[in-house]
Amino acid sequence: MATLQRRLAEFAAARNWQPFHTPKNLASALSVEASELMEIFQWLTPEESARVMDDPGRAPRVADEVADVLAYLLQLCGVLGIDPLAALDAKIDRNELRFPVGKEPGADV
Amino acid sequence: MATLQRRLAEFAAARNWQPFHTPKNLASALSVEASELMEIFQWLTPEESARVMDDPGRAPRVADEVADVLAYLLQLCGVLGIDPLAALDAKIDRNELRFPVGKEPGADV
Amino acid sequence: MATLQRRLAEFAAARNWQPFHTPKNLASALSVEASELMEIFQWLTPEESARVMDDPGRAPRVADEVADVLAYLLQLCGVLGIDPLAALDAKIDRNELRFPVGKEPGADV
Amino acid sequence: MATLQRRLAEFAAARNWQPFHTPKNLASALSVEASELMEIFQWLTPEESARVMDDPGRAPRVADEVADVLAYLLQLCGVLGIDPLAALDAKIDRNELRFPVGKEPGADV
Repeated sequence: MATLQRRLAEFAAARNWQPFHTPKNLASALSVEASELMEIFQWLTPEESARVMDDPGRAPRVADEVADVLAYLLQLCGVLGIDPLAALDAKIDRNELRFPVGKEPGADV
Repeated sequence: MATLQRRLAEFAAARNWQPFHTPKNLASALSVEASELMEIFQWLTPEESARVMDDPGRAPRVADEVADVLAYLLQLCGVLGIDPLAALDAKIDRNELRFPVGKEPGADV
Repeated sequence: MATLQRRLAEFAAARNWQPFHTPKNLASALSVEASELMEIFQWLTPEESARVMDDPGRAPRVADEVADVLAYLLQLCGVLGIDPLAALDAKIDRNELRFPVGKEPGADV
Repeated sequence: MATLQRRLAEFAAARNWQPFHTPKNLASALSVEASELMEIFQWLTPEESARVMDDPGRAPRVADEVADVLAYLLQLCGVLGIDPLAALDAKIDRNELRFPVGKEPGADV
């Protein structure tokens, strides 16, 4: 993950894209990519969505959009100095207290 | 990352949340969390957004929403059998061909 | 609709919010509100989603988020000088040519 | 607006798209379209975003995405039996109490 984060930073630097990469713009780009990922599932039934990787037309698009989401998440974390794995680890700790076993899914995790 | 993915899967299983965790629903939840992250930056100027981690009110919210985005991304990858790091690595390879040095930022990376 | 657009403009002006209301920020706020609307349906089955207005806990939230989406759409159209009804009328004309009767739903309309 | 809502309903009916048009799917499609609208502004500065309608490449795309957002909002309101203008009118009434003159912009309106 650190290697990918470095590759992304070098990629942006080589193209002089850093001025565009404010946290505000990266958060917006992340949201756009998450929407493009969701769009693939938009008209599918729950059952069809569960078989999406068996569809040779859709499977590579799903992987591609997953990559885009992760790319912007890592770039945003890079400019903000956030360690996403540590942030998630801390969040799961908190959620174990917040959602005791037995509750329906809430807004997060 | 594999450890976090396992923790998330066990967390959902212990609460019987798997029936809710169709790829369609997880992609939707990921998009909602990406929007909540973006919302923090919504009314900030580009300059203010660059200093967001100096703001003690906003910094923990940013880390928290980053964690939520990563949580749903890893859970989605888990149910779909996608390796997000491999997907991103392949994507950067393709983008190096697609965006030769010198171009303005496009829709992805 | 014109009356509501005027009320929204006066509301923002009375609070000196216009400097925040760049097209970029309003488009971002619109997307955040659309996500909040979607969040209500996030874990529902298709069948549950069809009965959402029978749920006294969810029905007013749905109407409230619909209002927020429309509010930002009208404000965005106001600052950009776009007539949303004329834009939609022209779009349906184009879609009648683009999606001849018999096709599956596409990305728009 | 009622005319447009009727045109949209007839358009979907003629193509047998109603089974796809659950509230859950329409809310998701609305969010995707709002993201596509935002994407146009993604890398623009606030100042560039204010001049977007002077750009002959971007102006028609903006109007087109505005139409798509409105189309899904009206279709969602149609299947749910919500009057969006009445919902917004009620919301502005509430916001006049909630945001007394002098406050910074909040999450809605």
